[in-house]
Amino acid sequence: MDRQTSLQRLEAVREVMNATNIDAFLVPTADAHNSQYIAPSDARREWLSGLSGSSGTALVTQRHALVWTDGRYFTQFEIQVDTAIWTLMRQGTDLSIQEWLVRNMPEGSTVGIDPTTFTRSAWTPLQIALLQNKVNLLPVEDNIVDRARVNVGDAPPARPSEPLIPLSVNFTGRVSSDKISELLEQTRARDASALVLTALDDIAYTLNLRGTDIPYNPVFFAYLVIRADLQTDNVILFWGDGNLTPDVQLHLEAEGTRVQVRPYTQIFAYLRDMSSSLQPGSAIWLSRDGSQAIYLAAESNTAVSTLSTVSPVALMKCVKNSIELQGFRSAHVKDGVALVRLLRWVHEQVEGGVNVTELDVVDKLDKLRGEEDLSRGPSFATIAGSGPNGAIIHYKPTPQTDRVIQMNDMLLLDSGGQYMDGTTDITRTRHMSASPSEAQRRAFTRVLKGQILLATAVFPRGTTGNILETLARKALWDVGLNYAHGTGHGVGHYLNVHEGPSGIGAALMSGDPGIVPGMIFSDEPGYYQVGEYGIRHEDLVEVIEVNELADHIFADGMVGNFDGRGAVGFHTISLAPHQTACLDVKLLSPDEIKYLNNYHARVLATLGPILKARNLQADYDWLEKECAPIRSAAMLVMASPFLIVSVVYSLWFGAKY
Amino acid sequence: MDRQTSLQRLEAVREVMNATNIDAFLVPTADAHNSQYIAPSDARREWLSGLSGSSGTALVTQRHALVWTDGRYFTQFEIQVDTAIWTLMRQGTDLSIQEWLVRNMPEGSTVGIDPTTFTRSAWTPLQIALLQNKVNLLPVEDNIVDRARVNVGDAPPARPSEPLIPLSVNFTGRVSSDKISELLEQTRARDASALVLTALDDIAYTLNLRGTDIPYNPVFFAYLVIRADLQTDNVILFWGDGNLTPDVQLHLEAEGTRVQVRPYTQIFAYLRDMSSSLQPGSAIWLSRDGSQAIYLAAESNTAVSTLSTVSPVALMKCVKNSIELQGFRSAHVKDGVALVRLLRWVHEQVEGGVNVTELDVVDKLDKLRGEEDLSRGPSFATIAGSGPNGAIIHYKPTPQTDRVIQMNDMLLLDSGGQYMDGTTDITRTRHMSASPSEAQRRAFTRVLKGQILLATAVFPRGTTGNILETLARKALWDVGLNYAHGTGHGVGHYLNVHEGPSGIGAALMSGDPGIVPGMIFSDEPGYYQVGEYGIRHEDLVEVIEVNELADHIFADGMVGNFDGRGAVGFHTISLAPHQTACLDVKLLSPDEIKYLNNYHARVLATLGPILKARNLQADYDWLEKECAPIRSAAMLVMASPFLIVSVVYSLWFGAKY
Repeated sequence: MDRQTSLQRLEAVREVMNATNIDAFLVPTADAHNSQYIAPSDARREWLSGLSGSSGTALVTQRHALVWTDGRYFTQFEIQVDTAIWTLMRQGTDLSIQEWLVRNMPEGSTVGIDPTTFTRSAWTPLQIALLQNKVNLLPVEDNIVDRARVNVGDAPPARPSEPLIPLSVNFTGRVSSDKISELLEQTRARDASALVLTALDDIAYTLNLRGTDIPYNPVFFAYLVIRADLQTDNVILFWGDGNLTPDVQLHLEAEGTRVQVRPYTQIFAYLRDMSSSLQPGSAIWLSRDGSQAIYLAAESNTAVSTLSTVSPVALMKCVKNSIELQGFRSAHVKDGVALVRLLRWVHEQVEGGVNVTELDVVDKLDKLRGEEDLSRGPSFATIAGSGPNGAIIHYKPTPQTDRVIQMNDMLLLDSGGQYMDGTTDITRTRHMSASPSEAQRRAFTRVLKGQILLATAVFPRGTTGNILETLARKALWDVGLNYAHGTGHGVGHYLNVHEGPSGIGAALMSGDPGIVPGMIFSDEPGYYQVGEYGIRHEDLVEVIEVNELADHIFADGMVGNFDGRGAVGFHTISLAPHQTACLDVKLLSPDEIKYLNNYHARVLATLGPILKARNLQADYDWLEKECAPIRSAAMLVMASPFLIVSVVYSLWFGAKY
Repeated sequence: MDRQTSLQRLEAVREVMNATNIDAFLVPTADAHNSQYIAPSDARREWLSGLSGSSGTALVTQRHALVWTDGRYFTQFEIQVDTAIWTLMRQGTDLSIQEWLVRNMPEGSTVGIDPTTFTRSAWTPLQIALLQNKVNLLPVEDNIVDRARVNVGDAPPARPSEPLIPLSVNFTGRVSSDKISELLEQTRARDASALVLTALDDIAYTLNLRGTDIPYNPVFFAYLVIRADLQTDNVILFWGDGNLTPDVQLHLEAEGTRVQVRPYTQIFAYLRDMSSSLQPGSAIWLSRDGSQAIYLAAESNTAVSTLSTVSPVALMKCVKNSIELQGFRSAHVKDGVALVRLLRWVHEQVEGGVNVTELDVVDKLDKLRGEEDLSRGPSFATIAGSGPNGAIIHYKPTPQTDRVIQMNDMLLLDSGGQYMDGTTDITRTRHMSASPSEAQRRAFTRVLKGQILLATAVFPRGTTGNILETLARKALWDVGLNYAHGTGHGVGHYLNVHEGPSGIGAALMSGDPGIVPGMIFSDEPGYYQVGEYGIRHEDLVEVIEVNELADHIFADGMVGNFDGRGAVGFHTISLAPHQTACLDVKLLSPDEIKYLNNYHARVLATLGPILKARNLQADYDWLEKECAPIRSAAMLVMASPFLIVSVVYSLWFGAKY
């Protein structure tokens, strides 16, 4: 952002703060639903600081302007944000937001936050810490950034409310009435009068509806209240102006679901009324990730308590049913076809001396994915990072950063598609002329070794991802290298590409139920050389019982199943070749080579016939070449002395006889 | 314990509970210093339930009698405790103590705990949970088990107060006055008026004194108060009757330390007086592991607050200085000599048909360690588990359980020594006739693979142990096997063999500062086949900077140091051969074979000359045989076709010419 705009926006916010007696104002990424990806109407932190991306919290006082973000965005921050005005606070290294506020805010001062943009579980500890230091935390319902935008003549865009998309049971595998029955049962089992769903993907999953309100995530702005205290009209949807179109009504009817619809904006008034009308001692069940604003409304009757847990829908939807899993696998076959076509095309262009930029790659990939059955667009903004751009972990090419891809570039391509039957997310790193430097070759190989060690792990059912993550880092750690992001995230079924509550990172995620069959995770270690190149290898893996393991060639047969607890592992569902020409085969064990060769044989056997059937012979030929088996260093080592000694020996024999 | 004794003791406790209106009484393992190993005077849970061992909490109500313990003691529980009277509660599987109390104690009832036996950090959450359910948690200062013991004519033994042992700076590397200066500085930096040390090893470390009040742990019953608000007489030791012997006085004087000594029992009165005399707003710094009783005394003046952290001494002493590290290494050489002699002796006896029992092994090992320089007895009760006894994770042979070791037995021998210059802890598993079953052979090998994968890890400085632990389990997990205990613990310098606050387990230990050079850990994966055998391989490892790595043959040269954070790894200091005859060499990678051969060469090169110098030729010969390099399966595979084909080829050449 240019300096003048940056200063003007910051000043506008400070003026509103001054007028409302707020000494510090916190601007998180989240919208009212704690969404990771947000609509333009909610992109307040980006408007203010210039930093785009899915993680970051801005803090403004009259003297300071700071942005906290994580390792994925450190490099991006330097590029997007005017660092003369804004200070980067590195999460995990610098003071935390809470520590900064405690050290810097004087007694009696007031910190403001829009309570729709902050979860209750984040609000309470911050409030306690500030109170201990005699600093007040105030919910500011009229968002200060929105007011500042109006003041500078750049009013935020209206909140979208696009048409809803019914998703048939052929894709979801379970009708909405069945999901709601289970939720009602769980609500009654917890002695709660109502369950309030606030996460957009929870609501989409429960009703088997999708939307387009937020880029990449097929969700719609809504709240859903499921009341266990009522016998009829006990499912209340807050959406748009409160009127469903006939196709959506028909879909819900066909699924046996009766929904009462009210306008989106009425949720707070409704919760306050409901709270007042409940018997003293009643409880309302909310997700831990519900906003402070939702909690305040539900608690407006002090005789009613709230019950706060991981959302029960989050726990339901992270374990995919067999229809969803079938869809995931099918989507990955189509996605593999599109990606193979794209990769061959990029190589052809660059080798042919055609100017291809990162944005060209993004467009071409969108087009190729769009040709696949049930395609619904990308699942996130494609990261096509060539050369130094590859080292920006969550890079997204823009006209300002776009580069022509060079023969000597590495290209990190992280992309995914939404399909009605599933969601994909895959990263492949390609060296355009297949002649990386030795350092690149070794890092490329070590990242792949990490991916394989995690992908082939066998572990007790219910193990949490944090216990496994080291496996993905080990080969890099062995030589003092690392990457500044987590290793795996859950993936929704034609839903958000990042889905909780499980993950594969260094820290135990609170509410993580542990890994069980039917979950989908990414497996994506990387290595980034700032200013030079980035490497990431990412596949999606399905969690399966160990007795179905196909990829698990490292184990020489199971002899136990963890005392009855059950053994689980991963099966890779992403289908696209790794660039074996970039490998340092010496660094691979025979088992790793066998694994890679098996994987490539499967990729060719699955995608090859489709390419042939579509008469895409050039793509087929390219894929066949890329999937060719590699030979182990040990085999070469074995072969060479054998040949030499044999010859010497035979000469000696020859001389003697 | 026989049924009659068991019932009589339980009845006696219930009678005292009845008389004092306590509905449930909790009996933890801990003494007033949260010690893991305790003196007989504090062994209340064992007296009551029969369960010995370092972990377990008994709970008695008029109807129920339960013991919570962890996986190490499940098998032991079945053997030692009358299960018709007591119920085993498996930690991590069954309800927690808190959950059980919340579900079972009626409103208005009272749970009692001796506040000297429960830490503040455990007390507060339990108290809150119980209060939410209208159950009262009462500190019962006059311990109910002690009173019951008097009532049945079995009064607890007196608390020991054995002579103190000065430890010279030649062993400690740092005089006590220097340690106290640093603690005073830290106390002032935290704006606290006083630091109260309650952990016995913290006090021993600070004053460079040792004791013999508790078996195996060379500590003495004491409290230490260091006052930042006083200029003189600001170090107050509560010990015995308050009178130091001249040698101890001389030692402290020589170290420049002035200590005021008071009787041990006066600590509570002193803290109450000190609290009253401090200015309002003052703070007293206590360890998080201080007892509820200590906190209550320090907080008797409500205008004084307590500051609760991991003990600063714990953070000091877990990083060993160079003199301590030198001592550790030297102690491990001596310990290796003793263990090699013992192992050869056991094999000789069993092979020769001599009846040797587990207790004979314990006695012989004590005797052999006793011959080593600066020896101070075992560092814990030797676990000599032959055959099925090996599967009892923290087994300790007794006359009741003792077994004659058979030619077909596996013997799990986990033992350690205290030396003035260091503490050891090592486990070797031996098959008496070196002819294990295939299942034993594979498990033996996989446990060793796990130990090696952890021992050779390279990782960023400050990584916590929980991040690394999976490495030790991986080879077992690959085939569905596991072990029900943690993988590594810190070790004190001529102090407690289990030393916090760092560890290598599945969970992040609260207050864990992360792994840095100078720390000492155990590396001890295992596998246990209940009713048949147990396998554990344990070494102590020193944390070193990666550029000093000697054992780290897995890495092909460091190319980074984690962006300046620094790379660290382990160096194995335990010195004793593994029984390579029990390995399934097919399961070992060439790197693992190289590691093992390097290790055995180092063991032989270090211990061999000592054995020879002492004219222990039979021991030397045995060690040399045990340390012989093993050959890889790959080498055999490589060799065989080479030989066959060479011969065929030469014959063909021979025929032709």
